[in-house]
Amino acid sequence: MRMSELSRAAGVPVPTIKFYLREGLLPAGERTGATQAEYDEEHVARLRLIRALGTHAGLSLAATREILSAVDDPPESTHDLLGIAHRAVSPPADAAAEDQAAVRALLEADGWDLAAVDTAAIDAVAVAYRQLQESGVAFPDALIGTYLDAARTIAQAEVAHVPSTSTSTSTADAIAYVAVGVVLAEPLLVTLRRLAQQVESSRRFDARQAPASD
Amino acid sequence: MRMSELSRAAGVPVPTIKFYLREGLLPAGERTGATQAEYDEEHVARLRLIRALGTHAGLSLAATREILSAVDDPPESTHDLLGIAHRAVSPPADAAAEDQAAVRALLEADGWDLAAVDTAAIDAVAVAYRQLQESGVAFPDALIGTYLDAARTIAQAEVAHVPSTSTSTSTADAIAYVAVGVVLAEPLLVTLRRLAQQVESSRRFDARQAPASD
Repeated sequence: MRMSELSRAAGVPVPTIKFYLREGLLPAGERTGATQAEYDEEHVARLRLIRALGTHAGLSLAATREILSAVDDPPESTHDLLGIAHRAVSPPADAAAEDQAAVRALLEADGWDLAAVDTAAIDAVAVAYRQLQESGVAFPDALIGTYLDAARTIAQAEVAHVPSTSTSTSTADAIAYVAVGVVLAEPLLVTLRRLAQQVESSRRFDARQAPASD
Repeated sequence: MRMSELSRAAGVPVPTIKFYLREGLLPAGERTGATQAEYDEEHVARLRLIRALGTHAGLSLAATREILSAVDDPPESTHDLLGIAHRAVSPPADAAAEDQAAVRALLEADGWDLAAVDTAAIDAVAVAYRQLQESGVAFPDALIGTYLDAARTIAQAEVAHVPSTSTSTSTADAIAYVAVGVVLAEPLLVTLRRLAQQVESSRRFDARQAPASD
């Protein structure tokens, strides 16, 4: 297809496509004339992925490029790919040694095996946990326990659904699933939690929910 | 206590305290001289709350002010307070009517009672869900089901732990819990999910986790 058709198929404006081509995020089409090139379905899929990462997930150009490089030249292990996706989207967190130790102890007491995880991922939890505590608002241990269980349940389901990588097509699927899942499922979870809070608080606190009698 | 002592107690620099005073986020101390004022424990707690919202949760000055106004002049129902906290932290989402209808259908099929929730909260889910679909990456229905369950489990636990509001002290606690919980527990959940993904993917994919034989 021509660039104008590619633009319609992927829903991305032509100037934006040209920008991605110049930046090397989108591979060039097959040249068919001095000023023309042919694009195919892989270009459409690639544009969707770029848009998912850059526009929807709000990643920087550098972070988008980092994930796309991993997609193009995937590491041997899916676990390493996850690490690359995490590093691309996580701002480096600077946790105090004692906060990191506290979080390690909390998670290990809950049965988490932290042997093969990035220190950066533990640091990120440690910073978030410390900030919650510094707010001065009491969060009961039982609630923190619910967070730990929920995070584990979610991650187990996500990892269980990584497409198996027996063929090269399914490897590409697995890579896209991990890269996009890490960043794009997050807003879904966050917005679902807020909506669920409203459902629950209305059930518990809001007398107006009872049907008005007339 | 003097302003310098307040600064030490709350861990907030004096110029920042002066800024919060000028902006009206922190109530003035009790004047004890032409250039001196006395501050108390409530000022310390207030500074922690401002810092939690503004610095840690990264809220804008306007959003912080909106939540603090609700803390100072709380609505009658805790459910309304939650709505104020959500509106302060959620960028307005512009969902297409069909996406909103799709998400309503999905949630109602799962037993969610959406009668008393903000349309904005549904819109936010609809936008996140659409963006996940537009990525072109297949997310199995079973996984979406796990997200719904997890969001509900989390929200039920959070709402169950809202301090009861039988006294004015506990009303203030409930308000701080809701306002801070909405914004500050989110980074904890997001970072815990990423860490749990690493734990699970390592268990499933990473052969290197087996102890090296020597």
